[in-house]
Amino acid sequence: MPKVIFQLEGAGAVEMTCNPGDNLLELARRGNVAIDAPCSGNGSCGKCRVKLLEGELETIPSRHITPEEFEAGWRLSCNCKVIGDCTVLVPDIASAYQSRMKTADLSSPEEVAIFESAKTEMETEGNLPYTNCFCAVQVEMDAPSEADTMPDNERLTWAVQSVAEVDTVKIPYTVMVKLAATLRENDYRVCVKGEKKDGVFTCMEIGPYDDTKLVGCAIDIGTTTVSMVLVDLISGEILAKGSSGNGQIRYGADVINRIIESSRPGGKKRLQDAIVKETLTPIIANLCKAADISARSILRLSIGANTTMNHLLVGVDADPVRMDPYIPSFFAWEGLTAQDLKLPANPLAPIIIAPNIGSYVGGDITAGTLATMMWDRDEMTLFIDLGTNGEIVFGNRDFLMSCACSAGPAFEGGDISCGMRATDGAIEAVTIDKDSMEPTLTIVGDAGQKPVGICGSGIIDIISELFRCGIINARGLFAREGSRVARDAHGMGRYILATAAESETGREVSINEVDIDNFIRAKGAIYSGIDTLLQSVDMTPDCIERVVVAGGIGSGINMKNAINIGMLPDVELDKYHYIGNSSLTGAYAMVMSDAATDKCHEVGANMTYLELSTYPGYMDSFVAACFLPHTDASLFPNSVQEM
Amino acid sequence: MPKVIFQLEGAGAVEMTCNPGDNLLELARRGNVAIDAPCSGNGSCGKCRVKLLEGELETIPSRHITPEEFEAGWRLSCNCKVIGDCTVLVPDIASAYQSRMKTADLSSPEEVAIFESAKTEMETEGNLPYTNCFCAVQVEMDAPSEADTMPDNERLTWAVQSVAEVDTVKIPYTVMVKLAATLRENDYRVCVKGEKKDGVFTCMEIGPYDDTKLVGCAIDIGTTTVSMVLVDLISGEILAKGSSGNGQIRYGADVINRIIESSRPGGKKRLQDAIVKETLTPIIANLCKAADISARSILRLSIGANTTMNHLLVGVDADPVRMDPYIPSFFAWEGLTAQDLKLPANPLAPIIIAPNIGSYVGGDITAGTLATMMWDRDEMTLFIDLGTNGEIVFGNRDFLMSCACSAGPAFEGGDISCGMRATDGAIEAVTIDKDSMEPTLTIVGDAGQKPVGICGSGIIDIISELFRCGIINARGLFAREGSRVARDAHGMGRYILATAAESETGREVSINEVDIDNFIRAKGAIYSGIDTLLQSVDMTPDCIERVVVAGGIGSGINMKNAINIGMLPDVELDKYHYIGNSSLTGAYAMVMSDAATDKCHEVGANMTYLELSTYPGYMDSFVAACFLPHTDASLFPNSVQEM
Repeated sequence: MPKVIFQLEGAGAVEMTCNPGDNLLELARRGNVAIDAPCSGNGSCGKCRVKLLEGELETIPSRHITPEEFEAGWRLSCNCKVIGDCTVLVPDIASAYQSRMKTADLSSPEEVAIFESAKTEMETEGNLPYTNCFCAVQVEMDAPSEADTMPDNERLTWAVQSVAEVDTVKIPYTVMVKLAATLRENDYRVCVKGEKKDGVFTCMEIGPYDDTKLVGCAIDIGTTTVSMVLVDLISGEILAKGSSGNGQIRYGADVINRIIESSRPGGKKRLQDAIVKETLTPIIANLCKAADISARSILRLSIGANTTMNHLLVGVDADPVRMDPYIPSFFAWEGLTAQDLKLPANPLAPIIIAPNIGSYVGGDITAGTLATMMWDRDEMTLFIDLGTNGEIVFGNRDFLMSCACSAGPAFEGGDISCGMRATDGAIEAVTIDKDSMEPTLTIVGDAGQKPVGICGSGIIDIISELFRCGIINARGLFAREGSRVARDAHGMGRYILATAAESETGREVSINEVDIDNFIRAKGAIYSGIDTLLQSVDMTPDCIERVVVAGGIGSGINMKNAINIGMLPDVELDKYHYIGNSSLTGAYAMVMSDAATDKCHEVGANMTYLELSTYPGYMDSFVAACFLPHTDASLFPNSVQEM
Repeated sequence: MPKVIFQLEGAGAVEMTCNPGDNLLELARRGNVAIDAPCSGNGSCGKCRVKLLEGELETIPSRHITPEEFEAGWRLSCNCKVIGDCTVLVPDIASAYQSRMKTADLSSPEEVAIFESAKTEMETEGNLPYTNCFCAVQVEMDAPSEADTMPDNERLTWAVQSVAEVDTVKIPYTVMVKLAATLRENDYRVCVKGEKKDGVFTCMEIGPYDDTKLVGCAIDIGTTTVSMVLVDLISGEILAKGSSGNGQIRYGADVINRIIESSRPGGKKRLQDAIVKETLTPIIANLCKAADISARSILRLSIGANTTMNHLLVGVDADPVRMDPYIPSFFAWEGLTAQDLKLPANPLAPIIIAPNIGSYVGGDITAGTLATMMWDRDEMTLFIDLGTNGEIVFGNRDFLMSCACSAGPAFEGGDISCGMRATDGAIEAVTIDKDSMEPTLTIVGDAGQKPVGICGSGIIDIISELFRCGIINARGLFAREGSRVARDAHGMGRYILATAAESETGREVSINEVDIDNFIRAKGAIYSGIDTLLQSVDMTPDCIERVVVAGGIGSGINMKNAINIGMLPDVELDKYHYIGNSSLTGAYAMVMSDAATDKCHEVGANMTYLELSTYPGYMDSFVAACFLPHTDASLFPNSVQEM
């Protein structure tokens, strides 16, 4: 049997044996070797590059690999069959996901300020107090004696009853098994942590008298990245925060490819393990260490995640999400605890899942909507979450309409030849000098970082600037020539942001007409979604009184440029607000506040889901939006092309 | 490091390496080799015999091994240190426990008749209907469509709500994860099993429409044996029944030795595994197979067990049971489920534990008391459970007093040189011809079985017959000589039931003055317990209107002989009733009937526990009872010594 060595860039090697003819990408997945494969092995994204160092591979040619690159050993792993022993170099994407990804995880002061403001609004305006049913009860008891023959559990019950003022005390198995030893080790002075509700106190943890910390864990599970905060359940203080890539990424960048993988034999478990064991568990463990708390002090968790992520997390069959009639297995569901998923937390800790409202509008959006406060206000608000996909909510206190746009992964660098996620080397902002056509780049990373590729916010800037400078026309085709504009043998134009010499990798960073066309379709999907949602309630863009933009893309987005290319509606810039990771903010509110949890479920139950693909007029609206800025230029009076 | 091979009689071998000087019995336990050790390695019981086949052992001499036996290789494993490689033969006690032990497990028609009668009394007289909160709900739903967009969990919730007429339907994780697939595989026609209580239906299992079987599992966990029945939770029919030895036996015959073992490092887990994994799990699996049901159909379990067995089962620190002030960790406790113990049953199935009322009066006694009906009657009832220990309850509908007698293991053959449990070869009944002094033996096993030793009921018969025939006097010392009476070098007399030639093993089966003394102390403990309990309520034996005897010993017990030696009070024989395994009968009632479960807890809460060891006058009563039949012979007018 052939032996394949996956040489991991800067991190050892994985050796595997396989059958002749096995697909290299699938083999890598079996061995838990992280190879970036947004299209999940369809050969369309060109991201799953590996470099053949030794031996041979049977390879289907790909437009993503130039003859020079092929010569140097570069292959798309999804296009390769193993035919004998070989060694391949795997670029270091895994550690990029784990450490360098720019995420909306409250790591910058700006994000914290935005978060604090949303948090305060929910409490004061929204009347959602940050109080919950968890409490720590410190009790002191006498030791048993011949004259006082109460057994341990009754002794604790009486003590907790009088201090917590409840009728009933429940002692579940996890507490019962350590009760005798804990009481005796602490001379019958202990602290009991638990849930107090309707006159019943359910013990969740018992420990030393002075350990009274109660911890909540709010989690945003994005298709691409996962962000998390540990919070003090009494004070609301953030004890630790962190993020990493979603370990499911190697099974596909988008939800569809992951669902397909999950429906293969053993797939549900693979996908669940990838998020639970490989992603959430290490982050929680790290945050517990950082906050110096025991995992058993985490008494409640909350999750903001899209419908597919929720299904894969729980381990529930996700196929119904993608299959006609697109009815998922659950919208709202209560009943999950940490022990069900074997998460490092108190085994009895309930996990609140922000409710889904459709196959493609999930709990991240209901949690995000909670954070926007639009459910409480008169002003008509448009809420746009630009993550791996785009979801839109429109409405106010009287109604809420939502839809999902099949925008694809363009906003995270997918479907774009030099696209990448917002890690080191990503071009995140661009201006172009109209006359010289020379670009000025802002690059993620330390000073001196050379460009590697382009992330979502950078692509918006580039296309907006190319259009403003007249370098491309309304159809996205090149209209000017110059030193930064090149054409291939078929005449396809491209704009060179960094030559091979200027780049980090020795590969040119550019954007071509196919990329631009892909992006225009993506932005057209967003705009036509907004347009259709407005039409469905007989409104027009001038009804919009407030626009709230959220999501990973949002942090670097230039709203003016997004309007300029007709992606976002042309309303006054001061109506635009960036709200950061609204899913995480909503999850925070839910874990801290019982009222916010109820409110999020109410918001979900009252939100109407519009299925765009079957909505009359949507396709016309989409086609009309696939121009720069739009076929109806009157919709974008502020869009500028300096001819 | 020395290598020890444990050659198992008729069942392969276990090879272990150890450090020089390691104790052989402890090594066997580490390797899960079952060696009978009722005294748990104190060297006092003489039961942990092994035969040295090869190599050497450093051995402390023991009175339990004759020089001839030593020569033949016999050793007490607790008295041996490993000093080099060796091979020892381990007698086949394990399979005796598993298959040949005579237990009160409803395996005979007599036992079934007794059980049925108690069952009917509880229902009719006791007003405890055999109804419970479990039900199977068959539902038919439409498949989701574009016009009917309800997700799976809401769809099921609506369907169950309307059929089961409940307000709330809870779908826990274990059902949620299989919901989507089960609905689709069964075309949305399914049967949901669960618990219906206070308007809430909690789903516990979902499966095919026609699989409506609901199963309960009632378990008696004795210190020595475990008995179990699977019952149909609707009809009450017994679906399967079985029993085996308690796998903890290798850690000691009595509860004290097991508690000591459990408090050693890793001990709690070892003792819990021995009962859960090695004992209960295989029995349940076998019974499920016999009844052709899936383990997930078992929706409730009930346990009748003594306080120590309950603590070791749950994995709760049992040390408080044996340590001053003898207050266990729990009496009654609700909150255990099958998944906590990883038992093969529905993971959500609650496990009802019959409440303990003291360190040495446990749930087997409260469950047994439930079965006696004494809590419902006017007549003064004395309930005696003779198992590995002896527990006594006295009272009627107005009061219930209970105590435990430190009778030791004599009734199961412990503390008696030729004592054994009631397996093949045990002498279970004896008559002696007064003139010839020749015995007539009844032996457990097939026709032609030769005697191996003496079990509890046999010992009662022998001592009663020896006393009746004047062969021993009131102090238990030999008063006649003859061919069946022998004396050793120190003049200690013994009665030979079977010579070496007549026995199965080639070893003489006899009872000596030390054995008789041990037994007289045991029967004295029982009688003085009864006496003290009566005194505590200012009553005398003639107040007893009914005597109910239960327990493994009971099935073969000759009441007349037990009265003759002053073990049981001298009341009319027709007041005596044998009730079989009352703990199992009570457990059956609890698993079937919510009312019986409540009643058992009520009985436990209302029962007074009398600690004999500190009760004034108990020691005097005990000393007075350590004669045949008693120092006050007027208490036993029907006791006969034919001088």
